[in-house]
Amino acid sequence: MKPWKTLARETILDQGKYLVVENHTIELPDGRILPNWAWLITPAYINAMVLTDDDHFLCFRQTKYGIAGTSLAPLGGYLEPGEEPLACAQRELLEEMGCVADEWIKLGTYCVDGNRGAGTAHLFFARGARRVQAPDADDLEEQELVRLTRVQVSNALARGDFRVLAWAAVAALTLACVNP
Amino acid sequence: MKPWKTLARETILDQGKYLVVENHTIELPDGRILPNWAWLITPAYINAMVLTDDDHFLCFRQTKYGIAGTSLAPLGGYLEPGEEPLACAQRELLEEMGCVADEWIKLGTYCVDGNRGAGTAHLFFARGARRVQAPDADDLEEQELVRLTRVQVSNALARGDFRVLAWAAVAALTLACVNP
Repeated sequence: MKPWKTLARETILDQGKYLVVENHTIELPDGRILPNWAWLITPAYINAMVLTDDDHFLCFRQTKYGIAGTSLAPLGGYLEPGEEPLACAQRELLEEMGCVADEWIKLGTYCVDGNRGAGTAHLFFARGARRVQAPDADDLEEQELVRLTRVQVSNALARGDFRVLAWAAVAALTLACVNP
Repeated sequence: MKPWKTLARETILDQGKYLVVENHTIELPDGRILPNWAWLITPAYINAMVLTDDDHFLCFRQTKYGIAGTSLAPLGGYLEPGEEPLACAQRELLEEMGCVADEWIKLGTYCVDGNRGAGTAHLFFARGARRVQAPDADDLEEQELVRLTRVQVSNALARGDFRVLAWAAVAALTLACVNP
C-alpha cells in the first residue's frame, strides 16, 4: 500500500503555539490530486493512568471547555518545547499530583485525527506512585483529585465517564493491556 | 465546579464541511477573561469494533494521511448531515464490510480535543456480524480487510498497532468493557 504524497503546504491560519492550520495539496497513489486538504498543527500531549503503591488509580474530577458538566480525567498535559514525552509525564505527575512513580509503561503514540493531524497523544501507565510533595497544578480548570479502584475505573469507563477521547483511550488501554 | 462561559465567538477560517475555526472569548469562573481561544469545528464520526458470528474481529489494514506506513483500523466514517450515530455505524458496516450485526453496544460519545473541540467520536461494539453483500467502500485510502482473534487484537493494541487515537480507544474499550 502506498502513502498519500504531500505536494505542497501553505499556512492559512497561525494562532501561535496552540494552533496552526495548513492547506495541503495531496497526490493519491492512483494519481488523483486533492487540492484543499486542511491540516491541523497543535501541540503534542501526554495522558497517563496512575496507580498508587496501595493499588488505587489517581484521577481528577474536573471541568473542561469542550464538554458540559464534569468528567473523570487522567493525568495530562502538553509537552514543553523539546521535552520528551516520558519526561513530560513525570513532570506532570509531580506538578499535578505531587507524586513520583516506580515504573512507567508506554501505551503508545497516537495521531489524534488520522485525516487532519491535530497533534499527537503519548499515553502511559505509571505504577507504584507515591506522594512526595504537595501538588502545585497550574491548570486553568477547577479539579478534584479522586482515588478509584480498578472496578470503579472499569465501571466509569463503561458509563462513558471519561468524556474526552484521549482520557477514555488511556484508561481503557490500561485496563485492556496491563495486569496491575 | 463551574463551567467556562463563552462570551463571544467569531469564525476566523471557513474551509467548508470539514473544518471551521472559531475564535472564542471565554470567562473563567474566577472572572478572568481568555480573549483568543481557538475552537475547531469538524464533523462527528463513528468508529466500531465488529465481531463476527464466528468470533473474529473485522478490521482493516490501511494507510491514513496522518500516519506513516500502515495501521490496523476499526470500521469508521463521518456522520452524514442529520444522521444518527448508530444509523451511521450500521450504514458504514454494510458499505465497508458488507455486513449486518445482531447487536450494537454503545461505548460512549467523546469530545476529540477537550480544549479545542475538533469533533465528536461515537464509539460502538457490534456483535454477531455476518456478510450479506459485497463491500462497496468509497474511501480514498487503500485498505485490506483482516480477521483477528481477541488475543490478536489485544496484542496489536499493546504494540500500538492501532495508530489513530479513536481506533485505539474503540478497540481498548471493547476489550476492557465487553465480555464477547
